[in-house]
Amino acid sequence: MMGAMTAGARTTGGSGAGQPAQEPGRVWAHVGQPFAERDYDVVIVGAGRMGAACALFLRRLAPALRLLLVERGGLPNEDGATILAPGVWTALDVPPGREAEAHWTRANLLGDPTARPCPLLSLHAEEGPGRVPTPHLLARFPQAAPLLDPRALPWAELDGEAATYRPGAVALACGQGAVRAGADLLLNTQAGLTPGGVCLERLTLTNTHQIVTHETHELRAGRVIMATGAEGPHAAEHDLGVPTAHGRAYRQFPRLNTPSGDETPVLRAGGLTLRPLHGGFTVVPPLHHRDPHGYVPTGGRLTGVPVGLRRETLEDLIGLMDALPPLATGALEVGRSLADVPGAWLALPGGRVDAPPTHQPLTDSVHLLLGGPHADTLGLAVAYDLAATVAGVETRPWAGQEG
Amino acid sequence: MMGAMTAGARTTGGSGAGQPAQEPGRVWAHVGQPFAERDYDVVIVGAGRMGAACALFLRRLAPALRLLLVERGGLPNEDGATILAPGVWTALDVPPGREAEAHWTRANLLGDPTARPCPLLSLHAEEGPGRVPTPHLLARFPQAAPLLDPRALPWAELDGEAATYRPGAVALACGQGAVRAGADLLLNTQAGLTPGGVCLERLTLTNTHQIVTHETHELRAGRVIMATGAEGPHAAEHDLGVPTAHGRAYRQFPRLNTPSGDETPVLRAGGLTLRPLHGGFTVVPPLHHRDPHGYVPTGGRLTGVPVGLRRETLEDLIGLMDALPPLATGALEVGRSLADVPGAWLALPGGRVDAPPTHQPLTDSVHLLLGGPHADTLGLAVAYDLAATVAGVETRPWAGQEG
Repeated sequence: MMGAMTAGARTTGGSGAGQPAQEPGRVWAHVGQPFAERDYDVVIVGAGRMGAACALFLRRLAPALRLLLVERGGLPNEDGATILAPGVWTALDVPPGREAEAHWTRANLLGDPTARPCPLLSLHAEEGPGRVPTPHLLARFPQAAPLLDPRALPWAELDGEAATYRPGAVALACGQGAVRAGADLLLNTQAGLTPGGVCLERLTLTNTHQIVTHETHELRAGRVIMATGAEGPHAAEHDLGVPTAHGRAYRQFPRLNTPSGDETPVLRAGGLTLRPLHGGFTVVPPLHHRDPHGYVPTGGRLTGVPVGLRRETLEDLIGLMDALPPLATGALEVGRSLADVPGAWLALPGGRVDAPPTHQPLTDSVHLLLGGPHADTLGLAVAYDLAATVAGVETRPWAGQEG
Repeated sequence: MMGAMTAGARTTGGSGAGQPAQEPGRVWAHVGQPFAERDYDVVIVGAGRMGAACALFLRRLAPALRLLLVERGGLPNEDGATILAPGVWTALDVPPGREAEAHWTRANLLGDPTARPCPLLSLHAEEGPGRVPTPHLLARFPQAAPLLDPRALPWAELDGEAATYRPGAVALACGQGAVRAGADLLLNTQAGLTPGGVCLERLTLTNTHQIVTHETHELRAGRVIMATGAEGPHAAEHDLGVPTAHGRAYRQFPRLNTPSGDETPVLRAGGLTLRPLHGGFTVVPPLHHRDPHGYVPTGGRLTGVPVGLRRETLEDLIGLMDALPPLATGALEVGRSLADVPGAWLALPGGRVDAPPTHQPLTDSVHLLLGGPHADTLGLAVAYDLAATVAGVETRPWAGQEG
């Protein structure tokens, strides 16, 4: 099928099919462009992949609704979880019962030019269902051989359906697609919830590179969708007085400069994923549990030497050095301080590291939309589900023949 | 059997039985008392319950070894995990295979005058083995009725063997017993590891109530036992360059001013323990996982109102308010800032919240001794085990008839 991201203003799937093409929406990128205050039917706060996809789907499903997408940074935000997300779709991450949504998500992702099928090898110390001796798979994927010690990881499972993509590119394509389909887009703007709408602070840079509020706007909105990632639950409580059980975790993605190529599979071992990227690998460390409220990420120390990785990640990597020998070499960029290693806060729906993306109503008019650890496999479907809920559409494309 | 704490210089159990009574050791409580530097065979750093008990047992098992017990504060340290520990012995917390050690610990604890048998009711939403309808047990323990809603917790399990005690009193009795049995005790002294011994910094208070180092001593020691609780693993790595997988968690113990009496049982529900104390209760919240390296505990907020409980504990208590209605009343002292609620760092052996106390060799001459979440049930036995290991004694009292 045609992917969601490449469809632009065209409507595919769902009950929105057959709607006429819309006039494109307006974009305010900086404070030099005067923002005309008005009412919107729906305001989506956050143009990461969840918010941007929800905006695109909502334009398709309910083109009559006036829609504003607000983003604190650019499109996509360079500080958010989207831009650093692994971008690995694998059937191994699909919770039972969510297969149809996951495959719908995959089909839509493959419409994005940055996506491509890429096999995933899941490596284990113990035998188990679906696992074959690791050397059998290494014969098919010789590029993976320098990365692992088959004596430590003698069993392997292949996900031949896996795919890799760039979540930041998906957010960009969805955001642009939403604008082409008639959504307004307001960048560099911080949004807070007010009774009946949102309060917008348009941000700008001073000569001394400080971010300051240039102007504020009070906007009425029939519905608000909070898609601000790990910050959403906090905002829900701060602005609405609605406590939630969601959590967050700070995850870092160190670079591993071991050569990779187009034929290199994604590797997974001990909860850690090695994702081929730009001729090397991005290391995606395991998530064990949420971080406590008030935690400020800090670089770790290894026998006195400061490193940029947080201590917990460092311990995980040390524990895997025998199984994945390149981790024990200078090919792993651990840095000297936190700023040296890319990292972001990740929302944990329900405080759980294995929770699928979710949305929930916070009040009659405010919804929370969370991606979290499994946004790569299910994010688009959950964003669609919320868009359809807001649009009053009952059917879901993954439930029918179209898929 | 006669309890460990009341036996003083007398030797009970193990291979030390029959040794002649020792001259008591010396005590240096403050810097006005000149400390005569000398060599020791064993230096135990930390006089919480684990270190103090280990000192007492070591005096009994190896009276020929010259022993120094060093403590940064008083006996027991008012800032440590020992003084705040729940002091609840329950068979429900005993890991499989550790029953003999746990019962040996219990028998020794009951020698302490602050210990007494106190039934424990474990309350559940679901039926399970060993559980009876909650109203059946409330008929036997009417004092527990105002604390819980049996509709939310319809099933209950009774541990009639449970006991409560004050871990701080145990540490004090063990420390005093060790001194009576010949151990030297150096209070208000910070200790660091050096090659071949320890570096001691004797602390004192200035006129402006600042803690400063008055003098330092380099001491030779054949063996060093690090029993500094949650700080031990960090010191092991910092001073010795030995990384460990141990973790820690900051636990707070809010007071619940719902009346309790001598007949009130300990209550447990949803991982939370209500421990009767001084006519009310100490709330012992559940531990879910370790806190990240570098975490600085901070008070939480509940819909904007600052409270002294950390956010995670607050969420746990909110989740139990229906089942334990007094938690939803002003009887719960949540405070306004972190300083209002007693709390301490707890060592988590292996980073796990369900791990029993443990000891391990860090080098040929340095041992780490950790109490952790289950020090109440197994701490004395593990302290004994390390003392016997250092003394070269093969037998354990819980393995024989005496127990």
